[in-house]
Amino acid sequence: MNSFGERFRVTIFGESHGVAVGVVIDGVPAGTPLTVEDFHSDLSRRKSGAVGTTSRSESDTPEIVSGLKGGYTTGSPITILFKNRDYRSEDYTTYQSTPRPSHADYVAAVKYKGYADLNGGGRFSGRLTVALVAAGVVAKKIINNIDILAHITRLGGEVVSQQSDIDNIISRTTAISDSVGGVIECSCRGVAVGVGEPFFNSVESYISHLAFSIPGVRGVEFGDGFAAANMLGSEHNDPYIDGEGKTAKNGAGGVNGGISNGNDIVFRVAVKPTSTIGREQVTYNGESGRVEGVTFKGRHDTAFVLRSAVIVEAVAAIALADLIEQR
Amino acid sequence: MNSFGERFRVTIFGESHGVAVGVVIDGVPAGTPLTVEDFHSDLSRRKSGAVGTTSRSESDTPEIVSGLKGGYTTGSPITILFKNRDYRSEDYTTYQSTPRPSHADYVAAVKYKGYADLNGGGRFSGRLTVALVAAGVVAKKIINNIDILAHITRLGGEVVSQQSDIDNIISRTTAISDSVGGVIECSCRGVAVGVGEPFFNSVESYISHLAFSIPGVRGVEFGDGFAAANMLGSEHNDPYIDGEGKTAKNGAGGVNGGISNGNDIVFRVAVKPTSTIGREQVTYNGESGRVEGVTFKGRHDTAFVLRSAVIVEAVAAIALADLIEQR
Amino acid sequence: MNSFGERFRVTIFGESHGVAVGVVIDGVPAGTPLTVEDFHSDLSRRKSGAVGTTSRSESDTPEIVSGLKGGYTTGSPITILFKNRDYRSEDYTTYQSTPRPSHADYVAAVKYKGYADLNGGGRFSGRLTVALVAAGVVAKKIINNIDILAHITRLGGEVVSQQSDIDNIISRTTAISDSVGGVIECSCRGVAVGVGEPFFNSVESYISHLAFSIPGVRGVEFGDGFAAANMLGSEHNDPYIDGEGKTAKNGAGGVNGGISNGNDIVFRVAVKPTSTIGREQVTYNGESGRVEGVTFKGRHDTAFVLRSAVIVEAVAAIALADLIEQR
Amino acid sequence: MNSFGERFRVTIFGESHGVAVGVVIDGVPAGTPLTVEDFHSDLSRRKSGAVGTTSRSESDTPEIVSGLKGGYTTGSPITILFKNRDYRSEDYTTYQSTPRPSHADYVAAVKYKGYADLNGGGRFSGRLTVALVAAGVVAKKIINNIDILAHITRLGGEVVSQQSDIDNIISRTTAISDSVGGVIECSCRGVAVGVGEPFFNSVESYISHLAFSIPGVRGVEFGDGFAAANMLGSEHNDPYIDGEGKTAKNGAGGVNGGISNGNDIVFRVAVKPTSTIGREQVTYNGESGRVEGVTFKGRHDTAFVLRSAVIVEAVAAIALADLIEQR
Repeated sequence: MNSFGERFRVTIFGESHGVAVGVVIDGVPAGTPLTVEDFHSDLSRRKSGAVGTTSRSESDTPEIVSGLKGGYTTGSPITILFKNRDYRSEDYTTYQSTPRPSHADYVAAVKYKGYADLNGGGRFSGRLTVALVAAGVVAKKIINNIDILAHITRLGGEVVSQQSDIDNIISRTTAISDSVGGVIECSCRGVAVGVGEPFFNSVESYISHLAFSIPGVRGVEFGDGFAAANMLGSEHNDPYIDGEGKTAKNGAGGVNGGISNGNDIVFRVAVKPTSTIGREQVTYNGESGRVEGVTFKGRHDTAFVLRSAVIVEAVAAIALADLIEQR
Repeated sequence: MNSFGERFRVTIFGESHGVAVGVVIDGVPAGTPLTVEDFHSDLSRRKSGAVGTTSRSESDTPEIVSGLKGGYTTGSPITILFKNRDYRSEDYTTYQSTPRPSHADYVAAVKYKGYADLNGGGRFSGRLTVALVAAGVVAKKIINNIDILAHITRLGGEVVSQQSDIDNIISRTTAISDSVGGVIECSCRGVAVGVGEPFFNSVESYISHLAFSIPGVRGVEFGDGFAAANMLGSEHNDPYIDGEGKTAKNGAGGVNGGISNGNDIVFRVAVKPTSTIGREQVTYNGESGRVEGVTFKGRHDTAFVLRSAVIVEAVAAIALADLIEQR
Repeated sequence: MNSFGERFRVTIFGESHGVAVGVVIDGVPAGTPLTVEDFHSDLSRRKSGAVGTTSRSESDTPEIVSGLKGGYTTGSPITILFKNRDYRSEDYTTYQSTPRPSHADYVAAVKYKGYADLNGGGRFSGRLTVALVAAGVVAKKIINNIDILAHITRLGGEVVSQQSDIDNIISRTTAISDSVGGVIECSCRGVAVGVGEPFFNSVESYISHLAFSIPGVRGVEFGDGFAAANMLGSEHNDPYIDGEGKTAKNGAGGVNGGISNGNDIVFRVAVKPTSTIGREQVTYNGESGRVEGVTFKGRHDTAFVLRSAVIVEAVAAIALADLIEQR
Repeated sequence: MNSFGERFRVTIFGESHGVAVGVVIDGVPAGTPLTVEDFHSDLSRRKSGAVGTTSRSESDTPEIVSGLKGGYTTGSPITILFKNRDYRSEDYTTYQSTPRPSHADYVAAVKYKGYADLNGGGRFSGRLTVALVAAGVVAKKIINNIDILAHITRLGGEVVSQQSDIDNIISRTTAISDSVGGVIECSCRGVAVGVGEPFFNSVESYISHLAFSIPGVRGVEFGDGFAAANMLGSEHNDPYIDGEGKTAKNGAGGVNGGISNGNDIVFRVAVKPTSTIGREQVTYNGESGRVEGVTFKGRHDTAFVLRSAVIVEAVAAIALADLIEQR
């Protein structure tokens, strides 16, 4: 379904080329300060328009239609709309006979029996992540003693440490009409000991559940992650070094037994390369009954991973806001 | 909380050294054939006793106390108990002053204010996975047209392909009183197109949520997984090759846009090495106020990953049973 | 919280004098025919303006901002907004020192720490029932083989059987600046045997949960209801008279053991008189520290029960749509 | 489904003549004092054996198999079993051709396709209320500053005020092999202002949801209840008489706008007469195809309402414990 959370509950709605996308956020305590300006910074980070991102231009202005009065939340659900404006009519029927590789065209057509609104990707579009980011902004207000910071650590197979690395990779990739993926690392500093509700609502379960809702995420790992599988226990074990739970190297990424241990919560997500590329690809053509070459049109990101760091922060904030309220 | 699922709902309870661990399974259709014998095979695979696993010996006999009559489910919740028998009284107070590295001792003591039953790991013990496996057996009965198969692909940093590889690594590790982790790959064959309920209940979100509930899991990836982050779009894209949704290489691990595409669902989980090892370790001693060497006692697995494949299958089955009912 | 339902899930938002009230409806199957016109009839029945109802005039035009394309639902959540237009600014501060008897002023001020938007009743206003009615319209489309019909059976202490009865009671009551309550009976015809999911999701539990969400409802009963408590078993028992579950007198109101038995589901709700009346009342004045006479202003219904029948139908439809999908 | 609650979550399982009935209670804070003796008083009140109740004798000894250690809850789910002992094998096949009037025989046979375990009423038996009462005991421990007291106010159509009234009615009814219903009133004293989470989780919604889960409940009303529907607004309105929310007559039963107002929460439930009676009744016989006279055997209560007061208290406690944690 389209809701997540028990105490801080987010409900996402909308389609890419419909009237609007948006979110209802339930469980925000009355009296939390919140203004439209609070959304500006994170929404800007998600926005398209930079090098390597799609040229679709949306103002991304949040319209708050409920739950806010005089700069404070009222205790009733907060509903935020983002009207869709800059979209072009696509000849989406093409994709029905020739589903794009690695897109949701095919599964959506089958699942929704032809009734899904798939223009511009419909509900599968990255457009819906604007609603996630907005929910993340509200979540961050609630857990404002926690610093959440995500950044790209790998792009197109290379470690990146500064903007120029990234620019070079994007230029090179755009030149060949291709796309690249990457890895985002997120740290959450200031989480108290004791957040997380095993058996099923472990910190890792919650964050990964939300992270895998972000279009294009293929993997999630915490602390040493997949590298832990290659270690000896004596290498992997991470001794406590004080009475407050601080460990020597934070190999657990801040989580033991599904519960925060007071160290930074650290996780990484793998983002695949954008599926829509300018180059010719082959795929099955339902009309001809043959696998054929085809070049798909449409605006797209060379690397939507560039826009994903703030989305990853948002899901971390949503997960933590809910888990903290569950304690 | 300790329940998961909307339509096929699993509630786990119990502590390692309490009276029993068990599970309530709600949402099983009346008339599903089920007997105690059905549990034998999967429970045996999870059991300790093999090389590399703990010497604790539990009969693991399921007692079905509700929901079953005459070999068929009744439509009312199925409750299964596993009595705890072979446990030794531990001097757990040691762990309160000297929490074991990478265990839940410390976080549990803080979170549950000293009231948690942590004997033998309490609710954090691998013992609780017997309940998950039992729920998996029931899930597999419901989705019996789907074949779910998990196996170890890496152990102690090496690719393993046969039992003797595994035995060698375990012998070598046991000889140095250490432990190893590994990677489990799971394939689900026969999932129809259209399973998965985005925005939040994608196939990946559901499976990862449950997989991260298994003690010791540090990462989850689907299809190309973290490797996808290093690919170009033209490399990663996976063309359809027929009108039924079959793709050339199944790089998506059977899931597009969070929805099954009819190809095998393939995912991998990274399992850390067992935290309890026979060698001396250092950690903070709350009584002395110093980081000190300590050797922890207690039975343990050299590689609990050896017992985890069937648990990974169980969570895949539980996730799919619930998602299939959600359609 | 502000969501209800497991399979057909309704999320209500908005405040009486905010930007809008609305609803997100999740779980509607793709391909359900739906147009803006479908809402007209039920929304008109709920509207104010008739004799005995408030003079506040809202156009109640639904804006469907997601989930609909070309006259059919898309399978993604349906979001419907009702903008608020005709509201007057109230001097709500009066109610903070002198909370109106039998209103939510006092509890809301305490619960939401002074941050609730209580203008026009805020989230406690009957205004929010427009969202319930809209959700009911969608629910009725899904269970379109079931006829749901609610009507007023008692008003102001009298049995009413025709419009003129009602008009007389309203005239008489308005003349004395007072208000009246009433009883609504609702019948649901065509519900198959087997709807309802005990132990907790019985038909009665579900319907009453929603019915008590309607402002002003003080009691709910099924079939013989409170009268059953006065009967002998031999009077109350209701024999089956055919092999399809038909009973002689439907004393159970269509539900045995929490499950529909194929007879009409029949229930009644008691609605209190409107709390806002034109006459002077006494209540505690926080500023003077005394119980004092006060006359409250503001538009109101002489009998909001007149507008409640369609709301009762809506909650019956929502409850049944969800329970039918839960089977 | 068989779970209720978001923060204090109760999962009921078992069948009347199966191995056991029981309950899993999740969300109990670690460190809550709890012993087996705590259950004695409430379980005794629910027990059969008194005049007017069935002669089935169950020891009703709770076996706590998880979540408790050394007299305190551990923070992990509490599982309580009640083994079934004193049951007789019934020839239940009779009821399949001749379903008993006003029982769940017919609906259960249809819904569960013949697989339900209906011996002794199966999951529809009053036997399951032992699990509710046990959960109520735990809930009362959590909200131990609130006094919850339920008692019978009407029996067999008469107001009752002392034990001898009741005894007379029962004797008279038993003499004619018939049964009677009654009304239970429940008061909850000490609930702070602000409990209840509208829009959907109002106090009335929550309590009625649970109350209608109790077998045989046909109506629920709060405060003035159905009588409110007959009042003028000026009669019904209930002025505040101090600054703490105290009202003159508590006509609202302690709830305004779905939220507790600090006065006693007062509600009444109507309980139907026991359906199983010793007298001949008529019903449809599926084998003969005719409506025929039949006398059903089996132990039963002349008035199970006698045992229901403590069950009503239990559901009030469960509802309040959950709502208080939801704040």
